[in-house]
Amino acid sequence: MNESNVKTMDVEYAIIGAGTSGLGAYSKISRKTDSVVMIQDGPYGTTCARVGCMPSKLLITAADYAHHLVTSDFFGVTASGRVDGQRVLERLRRERDERFVANNLRYVDKIPAHHKLEGRARFIGPGHLRVGESVEVKAEKFILACGSRPAVSDVFEPVMGRVLTSDTVFELKDLPRSIAVIGMGVIALELGQALHRLGVETTIYGRSGKINALTHPDMQQQALDILGTELDIYPSGQVVNTWEDAEGAWIEFEQSNGQRVTKVFDRVLVATGRVSNVDRLGMEHTDVEFTEAGKVIFDPQTMLCSDTPIFIAGDAAEYLPVWHEAFDEGRIAADNALNYPDPVPVDRRPPLMVFFTDPQIAIIGQSFRELQDQEIIIGDLPFTSLGMWFGTRSKDAFKSTWRRELA
Amino acid sequence: MNESNVKTMDVEYAIIGAGTSGLGAYSKISRKTDSVVMIQDGPYGTTCARVGCMPSKLLITAADYAHHLVTSDFFGVTASGRVDGQRVLERLRRERDERFVANNLRYVDKIPAHHKLEGRARFIGPGHLRVGESVEVKAEKFILACGSRPAVSDVFEPVMGRVLTSDTVFELKDLPRSIAVIGMGVIALELGQALHRLGVETTIYGRSGKINALTHPDMQQQALDILGTELDIYPSGQVVNTWEDAEGAWIEFEQSNGQRVTKVFDRVLVATGRVSNVDRLGMEHTDVEFTEAGKVIFDPQTMLCSDTPIFIAGDAAEYLPVWHEAFDEGRIAADNALNYPDPVPVDRRPPLMVFFTDPQIAIIGQSFRELQDQEIIIGDLPFTSLGMWFGTRSKDAFKSTWRRELA
Repeated sequence: MNESNVKTMDVEYAIIGAGTSGLGAYSKISRKTDSVVMIQDGPYGTTCARVGCMPSKLLITAADYAHHLVTSDFFGVTASGRVDGQRVLERLRRERDERFVANNLRYVDKIPAHHKLEGRARFIGPGHLRVGESVEVKAEKFILACGSRPAVSDVFEPVMGRVLTSDTVFELKDLPRSIAVIGMGVIALELGQALHRLGVETTIYGRSGKINALTHPDMQQQALDILGTELDIYPSGQVVNTWEDAEGAWIEFEQSNGQRVTKVFDRVLVATGRVSNVDRLGMEHTDVEFTEAGKVIFDPQTMLCSDTPIFIAGDAAEYLPVWHEAFDEGRIAADNALNYPDPVPVDRRPPLMVFFTDPQIAIIGQSFRELQDQEIIIGDLPFTSLGMWFGTRSKDAFKSTWRRELA
Repeated sequence: MNESNVKTMDVEYAIIGAGTSGLGAYSKISRKTDSVVMIQDGPYGTTCARVGCMPSKLLITAADYAHHLVTSDFFGVTASGRVDGQRVLERLRRERDERFVANNLRYVDKIPAHHKLEGRARFIGPGHLRVGESVEVKAEKFILACGSRPAVSDVFEPVMGRVLTSDTVFELKDLPRSIAVIGMGVIALELGQALHRLGVETTIYGRSGKINALTHPDMQQQALDILGTELDIYPSGQVVNTWEDAEGAWIEFEQSNGQRVTKVFDRVLVATGRVSNVDRLGMEHTDVEFTEAGKVIFDPQTMLCSDTPIFIAGDAAEYLPVWHEAFDEGRIAADNALNYPDPVPVDRRPPLMVFFTDPQIAIIGQSFRELQDQEIIIGDLPFTSLGMWFGTRSKDAFKSTWRRELA
């Protein structure tokens, strides 16, 4: 490439990523200065709208309707029906694109052209980015809002043609006949249960034997027991081998007791977590420090990274990967960038996370794991004692019992 | 009757009524003294469990399932089915009786026999009750927890054989073919919508043109508009004439614009509110004072009536006729009776009321009516702006818009 073709922009603020946190940061900074650029790699539209909360909820609603056909008789309403996988997915994409993504694109369209840049950004020196092949950006302050991507282990390499992640599952033209769901986090359980209810033969493979987001052992066990009455779950072990043949993708899973199970599937949904895209930014050219585990060190009250003029926000930070926190972090990062070098520390919200499974699981406030070394009282309120719940749920779910953990 | 057969009990505390508030009062008082009697007229089991919140929720759940058959196709799930009215009602009664009522009866069974008395109570002098025909109770302090009954106007006298109230509707062996629902309060709208969704030809007749529980005019109109797209509602006018013939019960309704509509129905559900049973207690033999409208004067922070040793609680008080308030009032009345004549004033909860219609309607905190003369700011958050709501609801309900009223 001819270096003389490289165009250089000089700005005060560079935001890497135009997702929920990047847009949140942009909206704050652009009110104060024109000297800002937001750099997007790939199509616009946030993780939440394109591949996250929104399409998963659209799928779950269809799955609820399919499930109603099964549970309806108990209530005196005889029902029968059929899931049309193509229509389920078409409606999902239509609503996703016409509402959530379109809303987002309308907002992005209104941003002045000189504030937007498209291409992959990476640091080539402190305060100095290369974007794509032909643009360089020099900026005083940076906000890393570059999001995350699904982690896919190398063990799935032989069946990669049949591997889906949350980035690709919603693009299917029709529902598969069968699917292996790898993981027991929120994405795995929400999508696994929804696909099962939509008639896909679904097997869920965990690793640790626990739903890790629930940190209390009793709750982990209860949730697994309840979901296990409906779903085919191997909670503990690891995928040791995969191969593909005419029948599909074979998954050989070694359970923690040493027993191996081998099954064949149309598709494999890998939902074993997401990793920050920060590793693609050339961070070795900055002064940002990392933990031994390779995570960016930053202050969650300011989003400042290691006393550099670099801030991090949203899923890229791998701190609280939920929409409202990404939104907050973008704005916290922006406020602190605008005020740099004086910090503007912000008290973070009480943690809140919801699994839109059935039954739903919510984790609110500090977890048992965080509190267990302190003197705490544990309150226990079984849903089965709540009249309104009896009134509206079928008998199948009556055994649900959850704990509230009180500090 | 031979007066010499009358047995007289002397106790410190007499509780009239063994519903939610009466039992709440009893549980507090019986911990402090053995000198208490609770008098129940009719079968045990609370309004909530027998004819109120619980059976209505059980009906609404069945109605939801029937409605899913209609809305399912939008989500890509083709559904068909049939409502079996007998089974809907059998399951409702079975769950109601086996769970809610049975729970209540188990609790009542554990109460010592000498604390219970059955029969209708009425004052025959200050501090002096007659119960049924053969028992008299002399007590120092009284708690009036005698509940309420549905109000039925005389205009329905000619069709009384086809009139239902919330006390009787759940005893139907099968769903009627058609029903007139009189009223636009929570009972009328919840049951009217549920019956409609279960396939009963339903017409709702209001009076004032408004859903009065919603005090802001915009919200009243919006709620009516939304419910009116699904339900056949004459919001404003009055029933002027009724008669019965072989076809059923005829309802002649004069709308507020003067036009009359006459229709015939299998059944007429009168849900125009409830009236306190206090009028049956012989209150003229006490010093309790009444408003001009005939309501007992009492202090909601102590439930004390006009400086007498008489307290009132629950639906009998006609103050906040919802379960949790009845429960609170029973306990507030008990604490104040135990401490009489020294008052133990209690701050009441923020008001909370929910209509389990679709969409649901919640009224939380002070109403617009209470606040409108003060300087207030009105916040307005349309549900249509909330992504999660788009995700899970069919298009039919997208127009829902509610206001939050902020003090």
